[in-house]
Amino acid sequence: MLLHLAAWPEVEDYLKRSTGIIIPIGSTEQHGPTGLIGTDAITAEAIGAAAGDKTGALVGPTISVGMALHHLGFTGSISLRPTTLIAYIHDYVLSLARAGFTRFFFVNGHGGNVATANAAFAEITAEAAGGIGAMPSNRPEIRCKLVNWWDFAPVKALSRDLYGNAEGMHATASEVSVTQYLYRDHIKPVPAAGMSPRIAPVSHFFGAADYRRRFPDGRIGSDPTLSRPEHGERIHAAAATAVADAYQTFVGET
Amino acid sequence: MLLHLAAWPEVEDYLKRSTGIIIPIGSTEQHGPTGLIGTDAITAEAIGAAAGDKTGALVGPTISVGMALHHLGFTGSISLRPTTLIAYIHDYVLSLARAGFTRFFFVNGHGGNVATANAAFAEITAEAAGGIGAMPSNRPEIRCKLVNWWDFAPVKALSRDLYGNAEGMHATASEVSVTQYLYRDHIKPVPAAGMSPRIAPVSHFFGAADYRRRFPDGRIGSDPTLSRPEHGERIHAAAATAVADAYQTFVGET
Amino acid sequence: MLLHLAAWPEVEDYLKRSTGIIIPIGSTEQHGPTGLIGTDAITAEAIGAAAGDKTGALVGPTISVGMALHHLGFTGSISLRPTTLIAYIHDYVLSLARAGFTRFFFVNGHGGNVATANAAFAEITAEAAGGIGAMPSNRPEIRCKLVNWWDFAPVKALSRDLYGNAEGMHATASEVSVTQYLYRDHIKPVPAAGMSPRIAPVSHFFGAADYRRRFPDGRIGSDPTLSRPEHGERIHAAAATAVADAYQTFVGET
Amino acid sequence: MLLHLAAWPEVEDYLKRSTGIIIPIGSTEQHGPTGLIGTDAITAEAIGAAAGDKTGALVGPTISVGMALHHLGFTGSISLRPTTLIAYIHDYVLSLARAGFTRFFFVNGHGGNVATANAAFAEITAEAAGGIGAMPSNRPEIRCKLVNWWDFAPVKALSRDLYGNAEGMHATASEVSVTQYLYRDHIKPVPAAGMSPRIAPVSHFFGAADYRRRFPDGRIGSDPTLSRPEHGERIHAAAATAVADAYQTFVGET
Amino acid sequence: MLLHLAAWPEVEDYLKRSTGIIIPIGSTEQHGPTGLIGTDAITAEAIGAAAGDKTGALVGPTISVGMALHHLGFTGSISLRPTTLIAYIHDYVLSLARAGFTRFFFVNGHGGNVATANAAFAEITAEAAGGIGAMPSNRPEIRCKLVNWWDFAPVKALSRDLYGNAEGMHATASEVSVTQYLYRDHIKPVPAAGMSPRIAPVSHFFGAADYRRRFPDGRIGSDPTLSRPEHGERIHAAAATAVADAYQTFVGET
Amino acid sequence: MLLHLAAWPEVEDYLKRSTGIIIPIGSTEQHGPTGLIGTDAITAEAIGAAAGDKTGALVGPTISVGMALHHLGFTGSISLRPTTLIAYIHDYVLSLARAGFTRFFFVNGHGGNVATANAAFAEITAEAAGGIGAMPSNRPEIRCKLVNWWDFAPVKALSRDLYGNAEGMHATASEVSVTQYLYRDHIKPVPAAGMSPRIAPVSHFFGAADYRRRFPDGRIGSDPTLSRPEHGERIHAAAATAVADAYQTFVGET
Repeated sequence: MLLHLAAWPEVEDYLKRSTGIIIPIGSTEQHGPTGLIGTDAITAEAIGAAAGDKTGALVGPTISVGMALHHLGFTGSISLRPTTLIAYIHDYVLSLARAGFTRFFFVNGHGGNVATANAAFAEITAEAAGGIGAMPSNRPEIRCKLVNWWDFAPVKALSRDLYGNAEGMHATASEVSVTQYLYRDHIKPVPAAGMSPRIAPVSHFFGAADYRRRFPDGRIGSDPTLSRPEHGERIHAAAATAVADAYQTFVGET
Repeated sequence: MLLHLAAWPEVEDYLKRSTGIIIPIGSTEQHGPTGLIGTDAITAEAIGAAAGDKTGALVGPTISVGMALHHLGFTGSISLRPTTLIAYIHDYVLSLARAGFTRFFFVNGHGGNVATANAAFAEITAEAAGGIGAMPSNRPEIRCKLVNWWDFAPVKALSRDLYGNAEGMHATASEVSVTQYLYRDHIKPVPAAGMSPRIAPVSHFFGAADYRRRFPDGRIGSDPTLSRPEHGERIHAAAATAVADAYQTFVGET
Repeated sequence: MLLHLAAWPEVEDYLKRSTGIIIPIGSTEQHGPTGLIGTDAITAEAIGAAAGDKTGALVGPTISVGMALHHLGFTGSISLRPTTLIAYIHDYVLSLARAGFTRFFFVNGHGGNVATANAAFAEITAEAAGGIGAMPSNRPEIRCKLVNWWDFAPVKALSRDLYGNAEGMHATASEVSVTQYLYRDHIKPVPAAGMSPRIAPVSHFFGAADYRRRFPDGRIGSDPTLSRPEHGERIHAAAATAVADAYQTFVGET
Repeated sequence: MLLHLAAWPEVEDYLKRSTGIIIPIGSTEQHGPTGLIGTDAITAEAIGAAAGDKTGALVGPTISVGMALHHLGFTGSISLRPTTLIAYIHDYVLSLARAGFTRFFFVNGHGGNVATANAAFAEITAEAAGGIGAMPSNRPEIRCKLVNWWDFAPVKALSRDLYGNAEGMHATASEVSVTQYLYRDHIKPVPAAGMSPRIAPVSHFFGAADYRRRFPDGRIGSDPTLSRPEHGERIHAAAATAVADAYQTFVGET
Repeated sequence: MLLHLAAWPEVEDYLKRSTGIIIPIGSTEQHGPTGLIGTDAITAEAIGAAAGDKTGALVGPTISVGMALHHLGFTGSISLRPTTLIAYIHDYVLSLARAGFTRFFFVNGHGGNVATANAAFAEITAEAAGGIGAMPSNRPEIRCKLVNWWDFAPVKALSRDLYGNAEGMHATASEVSVTQYLYRDHIKPVPAAGMSPRIAPVSHFFGAADYRRRFPDGRIGSDPTLSRPEHGERIHAAAATAVADAYQTFVGET
Repeated sequence: MLLHLAAWPEVEDYLKRSTGIIIPIGSTEQHGPTGLIGTDAITAEAIGAAAGDKTGALVGPTISVGMALHHLGFTGSISLRPTTLIAYIHDYVLSLARAGFTRFFFVNGHGGNVATANAAFAEITAEAAGGIGAMPSNRPEIRCKLVNWWDFAPVKALSRDLYGNAEGMHATASEVSVTQYLYRDHIKPVPAAGMSPRIAPVSHFFGAADYRRRFPDGRIGSDPTLSRPEHGERIHAAAATAVADAYQTFVGET
């Protein structure tokens, strides 16, 4: 059940069965010459929704802008500062905690969110328990967990099979495939001259200016000219299954 | 053009033609027994996108969680604190200002956002000019404007024709109709006993607890049993036209 | 009773009779060539005090600096950022809530405060109830309400009678009259050349630089050369009566 | 010249002669059984205004709520948190700095403000210079200074002459006298039973609860039954002269 | 050169040779029945200092309190909230950037710091470049990097050789050995009954209460009864060499 | 007992005997041509530790970076903004309060910390009691106190005997002596030309740029060429005794 397509009495009923919720979190940032700016939000949302279908879990509205300060050198990228994202996740989670939700499972589409989200979880968990100085109490315990959809073994195996070392780290062949599957009308043509180099360079980086200098077209380590909607369908399915399993484990844990 | 479905070189091209952007902003909150929790985000997104189609404007990702603290008494509602929403809008706008955008046009679906959004615009405009203490400079001027899609004269006239005094203030007949038009598969059945009273009460309120006490099923002044998808189609069209015109005026102004 | 002229045992006694308080809120900002920079604080304070006299209500210290970022292009204007004003109102209200006050009635002299004050009220009400994530409790409910003294029907009727369409939106004829009534020794002479145009232009605006460009002498839509202390006395009286009535209604409401 | 009673062109003229301003800062807090809750703001405002008269300095609006968390055990006291007061002073000073003011002279009426105000000055000075990480620039240097009106030698000598060791530290005989001089109609009668003990106890304290426990009627070390309006007039005059001299020195310094 | 043992003219000289600095960052938190509460700060400080000796790098004061909210269930643990740690690192780095430092190399002793530190680096890098909305400029680029001393291949190999699967994840055998080497006088006796189980359990966890429930004596996956000061000496040496090499690479990179 | 050299069960035992803790707080800032940048942290740490030895008190990790914004004109100085230091002290104290500590005794080595630390104490005490708006409760009361080690009468007498009016206010002869005693290997040679003037000038100052202009080598009022390690030993001993006595009084007070 998608929260935004439910009426409140339906959610009140749901809460009698489960206090868990799936929350897709992505980003709005450049994804190379042909990748959609919304790639990370689109993939997280679709995979999160599919996992919700498989498990009967409620799925909250997608956090579509994330921590992408290092992408701001490319027009169209939008980022929250880490402290803003922490406040955002805090309010999102505690709003639902007020009603009785206790298990918050974030399906993540953007590696750049991981550090900030985990910082947020630590801050939220402490505050939901009454603040840093609060003594132990009887309040129900809040648990937050984030998973990256591409990090599950079956998804990694599939990407490796399909793209080998052309999968890459940003604007990956697999994530572009998933968006092609989801938005066939928005598959961008590969530039006539192809991409150069075909497989983008790989390295670490420091900040937005340095990022653009090292990766002039935005890709890291990937060749998204290999992406195909048919691949995307398979990757999406594998990820949805893996995420659904992980969610079940999470909410089942005492 | 929807930003999340564009690749960054497309946005860079767009910016040569226009420095304006449409940003839908809604909320995730109860909308009565049959209204979708995502109503405000759904309507703002659809109307903003349609206005983008009409004007060729870029449309940014929807701000789907807004200022809805007074709805937190109903399960499924999510709210940002005003200070969080100010920070969020700040980061969203300044990320794009960095690339050269200067005209930010918010299409709003939730009355509760108005105060906080306007507070945010004041803070952002001052900061984009270099901070509260900065002397005048040559930086390009940032302009933010918010419009409520239901507030344009043709939209109001249509709602009045359709629903008279049953339109209401929250979980309005017209907004429920628009979501019925957009999500025909998620039209919620009216409870067998109907809604009681048929037209919800009207009054001011103070905070979440007081809200729930005064409006036990969440509606204010409305009878959404009158809502129909056919109405929604007409309302959506009227709002999209009005919003498109207002956007043109906004970006055309010197 | 003015809080700052009371001793604490008097306030403790008052609290046994009433948990309501009137709080004047204004601004320190340019008011055209002849308007006092303190106009909004002066008028709110005087009208709030008069309403206190009529109702026996306690009147707190005036919030004399408000949200006036758009006036900072004129020397002598002072503004809080919206987030600072939110924090300020938060601390003011919660200090008194600690002692048992529950009804906070803000008499406002500056339109620019409305959005931020309402954002603050939402944040305060949620926090006074234990924070965004707090479950319902037995704490006494906090209520905040803001009224603009010029917005009551009798006050508007009087301004219309006196000035017609020369009343304006900023540095209004009526507010200048009220300050002339209150500070006869500080009535500023109209410049020899008069004001030009006599009735200032009307439009919306974006930020401080844009404001000064559109309204070079600071006025919006007004002709304060029409202002007279005798008018001010009548306007003050009408506003005080209307505010007193509104306060009674507010504190009497369950 | 009082800023709130000036029109903006007058302030613009003033700024051609001087970039200094006097800012009264007080508090709204209990002052014993007979002291006015507004004592610290009232005295700072009156002495600041008198010093402005003597020196021709502009006098800004009084900061009437200060850092008084330790007084919150007494009904009617209002306090800002230190971080709120820092933000408030920041915005106040930088608003004026934008226009060209560079010398900010705070006349203080409340010992509890000193630490926070000095913390604020450090933060403001660094930020006005471009932030903690900014390299040296050509911006005009901002200077902030705070003086306590009771701390000047002539004022201390007068208090000692009048009250000896009954002057005290809070709800002092001298500050109560100054408010009696300024508000003869609000001189509170001494309780029939007198105050007990006649001279209040002296000690340090920790927090609001501890304060009330140690000083049940709110006074520290004082016997304000000795206060007289005639004393207040002399003290006010001595303080105004001392403050005026200190201001001249401050703005004259290179 | 240790910054705290240098005089400022020595640092000014250093800056002519290098703009890099090593910054140890640890934590103050429980480390099982026999581990020192300061383990993470002690090890980071000693290894950072040794790396400074090898490379001639300046070494800043140790950040000895980190992000350890999940350890607050054990007496003696101290934690910053993530947002406080972000602010702290921000100020530390920008203070030095003001003087001309550009390369900030954090030697980390606590896994719990990683997420927050990386969030901080993103925020700092963006701000040092002028803020989220700043257009590209000529300011020198700030680079921050964090390394965990235990994560280098030679250090991991050594731990594996010494402890196999008894090394663990918290209160590890190797970190306890390093502190035994550094503080031979503070080697804590193993409880007479030994530790039970000998190798602590391994699992994820959520928050402080959950942590204590899962790991009653504080250890995760380790058997620190195996720790020996002689091991610590070897581990310290291996880590110092690896860190020194990594620092050289970092500052040498263009 | 030093907290960082204890294991958590030792701290749990300690807490059964005492709920007090000594917390050294210093700064990392220039101390003239020959003073160590870490002087304030080094002296506070050593004197705090010695006082801990004398009293059996637990001693927490040193806060080694303080409020030194006015020293940022000298390379190697590091400062927190006051608001960051407030947050830092807040988290430090409340982490320990969660476990049951109630008496926090700060041994301070830097005058510039005093204002901000006292602001922090006020904010912490209010928050530990439940926030600014919280009604009185049964929570154990938190008390914070700061002492400057050089401010005790016996220490002042000793400094006066040793250096007379060459002791000074910053980079004092006495504090340099204490660091010479503690770090004999890091005694910096006096420049061949001596210091000029021999006794540094004395005045107030405003901000970092002004500080450097007035005090070109960083000293205020001192002649640290008089410093000797033998003096330092005596000063250290006198300060440790005085601090120990003050701590006993503090924790013994009801």
